[in-house]
Amino acid sequence: MLEELKQEVLQANLKLVEYGLVILTWGNVSAITADRKYVVIKPSGVDYAVMKAEDMVVTDLDGHVVEGTLRPSSDLDTHLAIYRAFPAVNAVVHTHSRYATALAQAERSLPCYGTTHADTFYGEVPCTRHLTAEEVAENYEANTGVVIAETFREKDPQAVPAVLVRKHGPFAWGPNCRKAVETALILEETAYMALLTEQMSQRSAEPAPQYLQDKHYFRKHGPNATYGQK
Amino acid sequence: MLEELKQEVLQANLKLVEYGLVILTWGNVSAITADRKYVVIKPSGVDYAVMKAEDMVVTDLDGHVVEGTLRPSSDLDTHLAIYRAFPAVNAVVHTHSRYATALAQAERSLPCYGTTHADTFYGEVPCTRHLTAEEVAENYEANTGVVIAETFREKDPQAVPAVLVRKHGPFAWGPNCRKAVETALILEETAYMALLTEQMSQRSAEPAPQYLQDKHYFRKHGPNATYGQK
Amino acid sequence: MLEELKQEVLQANLKLVEYGLVILTWGNVSAITADRKYVVIKPSGVDYAVMKAEDMVVTDLDGHVVEGTLRPSSDLDTHLAIYRAFPAVNAVVHTHSRYATALAQAERSLPCYGTTHADTFYGEVPCTRHLTAEEVAENYEANTGVVIAETFREKDPQAVPAVLVRKHGPFAWGPNCRKAVETALILEETAYMALLTEQMSQRSAEPAPQYLQDKHYFRKHGPNATYGQK
Amino acid sequence: MLEELKQEVLQANLKLVEYGLVILTWGNVSAITADRKYVVIKPSGVDYAVMKAEDMVVTDLDGHVVEGTLRPSSDLDTHLAIYRAFPAVNAVVHTHSRYATALAQAERSLPCYGTTHADTFYGEVPCTRHLTAEEVAENYEANTGVVIAETFREKDPQAVPAVLVRKHGPFAWGPNCRKAVETALILEETAYMALLTEQMSQRSAEPAPQYLQDKHYFRKHGPNATYGQK
Repeated sequence: MLEELKQEVLQANLKLVEYGLVILTWGNVSAITADRKYVVIKPSGVDYAVMKAEDMVVTDLDGHVVEGTLRPSSDLDTHLAIYRAFPAVNAVVHTHSRYATALAQAERSLPCYGTTHADTFYGEVPCTRHLTAEEVAENYEANTGVVIAETFREKDPQAVPAVLVRKHGPFAWGPNCRKAVETALILEETAYMALLTEQMSQRSAEPAPQYLQDKHYFRKHGPNATYGQK
Repeated sequence: MLEELKQEVLQANLKLVEYGLVILTWGNVSAITADRKYVVIKPSGVDYAVMKAEDMVVTDLDGHVVEGTLRPSSDLDTHLAIYRAFPAVNAVVHTHSRYATALAQAERSLPCYGTTHADTFYGEVPCTRHLTAEEVAENYEANTGVVIAETFREKDPQAVPAVLVRKHGPFAWGPNCRKAVETALILEETAYMALLTEQMSQRSAEPAPQYLQDKHYFRKHGPNATYGQK
Repeated sequence: MLEELKQEVLQANLKLVEYGLVILTWGNVSAITADRKYVVIKPSGVDYAVMKAEDMVVTDLDGHVVEGTLRPSSDLDTHLAIYRAFPAVNAVVHTHSRYATALAQAERSLPCYGTTHADTFYGEVPCTRHLTAEEVAENYEANTGVVIAETFREKDPQAVPAVLVRKHGPFAWGPNCRKAVETALILEETAYMALLTEQMSQRSAEPAPQYLQDKHYFRKHGPNATYGQK
Repeated sequence: MLEELKQEVLQANLKLVEYGLVILTWGNVSAITADRKYVVIKPSGVDYAVMKAEDMVVTDLDGHVVEGTLRPSSDLDTHLAIYRAFPAVNAVVHTHSRYATALAQAERSLPCYGTTHADTFYGEVPCTRHLTAEEVAENYEANTGVVIAETFREKDPQAVPAVLVRKHGPFAWGPNCRKAVETALILEETAYMALLTEQMSQRSAEPAPQYLQDKHYFRKHGPNATYGQK
């Protein structure tokens, strides 16, 4: 069943590798069927290089495997909680991409520092609160999803299609696998730029002496240029 | 019409991907005809991997599409304003490359920290002022070009062939597509080096103990070296 | 002898290149036989591009070459000391990967800043003490292994399968070559993220003006979007 | 004449691209003949992708072209000054590689922070003094070489085979082209690590809560692990 969606989920998982968002087996994509009865998700701990569409695992909304011989991603219950909380979301992506993960580890939201961010996210991408020790002990993965939903109580998950789970990493989502993976890439890129923006906001160094600037500029430009071929 | 220029504009857009200056569809190159009547520009939101020369859009200087079935880049009006303001400019490039964009987000000009910069830019690459809320509301893209022109009121756009639009990102230009794209690459590289220069200007750490330096150096060099094959 | 293990050690050494953990000849992997009588290790200073399985050097636990015409890696005695100290370890990896090496140069342990780290390492990855000038002069490589063992006197080397040798760089290990190399990769990745986490924990910059955020977001989203094709 | 040396110089120039030390045409390698009468150097401003062995320019020690139809690299006179000053040097490399250039722009020497550095450089890699405005005006490229030689008045150029020219960038050298290019790569790598070392030496952030560390570690390790396939 669901051969087309399995193919789509497989391709989206491979895009994570192509975009440099995962190493080893660190990431997973899932999608939900249009009737919101079944979820197709990457199997746990399988090498991307050998993964096939038929390795994708189909579960119901309670997380029971209904097709597939492999275990689903260990983050399945977080994906399911997101689908339950956000009815417009059809695909979910989780990665440990460097800059977004580091921001989650720094326990910070991603501020909107410019138009690159504003093109995709309406306002800051929030960081969740800590899960309590009880929430971790009781049902860690499902409670991760609950805390994500709680973070969006006053926020539109379509206007801000991603979150940073404190001390863990990013989740992104969207109307389909392709858009969800692109959002995961944009989150990483804007997190990277945000750090650079902050670093560039507080520093200075000495400019080059004017005579050296002149020498180099006019070595390559104007009537006395000597660089390159005639 | 303009088949050669379309091919040139296409190739320049693909160079942005090759140089690592764009992800997804984040960037655009245009060129103006020698009679300065028509502009050829990348279509909006089309994947670089499938883009063809015939997808390039031809407009007049008022931004009316005169050939092509696709919408032009949403930044078209900024390109047009640059061509109107700078008569020696024949090609314009816009990217969201990481380091140049971060510098724009940090609301800073790029200082000349060394000869790498001086080889291309005569003095600092300026950052524009903020557009006002009114300028954004009224005609955002055209006013972005107006503010760029205003930034160069006392500057030669051929001696400094790029600008950082505050909270947005870089625009670069030149006498042809190839030079404009190279300038966009050099701007990114010098912005990267500028941050490193500033970071390196204010730090220190402990050197390795001399006896450890000796051990490693003389393990590989001199009469008692043991590294490698005899 | 040991043709299969030589092949495994060769492949693990090549993975270091593929994972970007080494440049030139900067790194080495070894493995020990099940009876813990022989060690197979990369030869010293041989280019990865031309290295063959038969170039791998077989030594006994005292470091005497028992097969192979090339000199073993100059770090052999450190590998041997690790095998002697940690009976559950079957493979050892040494690299000069950038972020892990820099952390060793900063004379710091790698703290657990998040779940990416906790998935692999139970608690911080320790940094050794300095070797004394006497330890360096007397038997540098073997004493490096002794100091690593000393660092784990109260630690389980299976729960924390890596170490940072002060002012030198990382060693990682595991039950087989593949796992040991993956741990070296994870150490590099978590060291990278740790620096980012620390940098992101202490900075800020100005957000973009709300009207500019609005303009960009609604240029691409909602009923008035103009980006892309209809 | 000198066909073999031209081939060697060409290959060394191409290695700069492969190692990521140059973009566009930013770098050059030269070599001197055994009798120290002729120098073979890259032509100025020629694209690496189309460069051929016969494009290499042969000059005498006064910089007169004795073979070749193209202009030599604009840095020729600096190379010549290095050959005159350092009789054991047979090949010279100049790049604008990011981290080494940034260190030159920060007007700093590269300290020895660890064994990676000590394996190649005996002690710090020095940064030259500024050239004076007169030295720049009079004979810029030759005087750059003179200032390099001055920097090594009390230093052995074989024990420290590289220099950072203030506000400009790195030069490296060696007994042959291959070694000189490898030294340029090692200089870039150790400059990168030096910045990281300094950044890591002064920061901290909050560790992850212990219960979260436990959850993640034991999800993947020990009797209750659930990650991966059975």
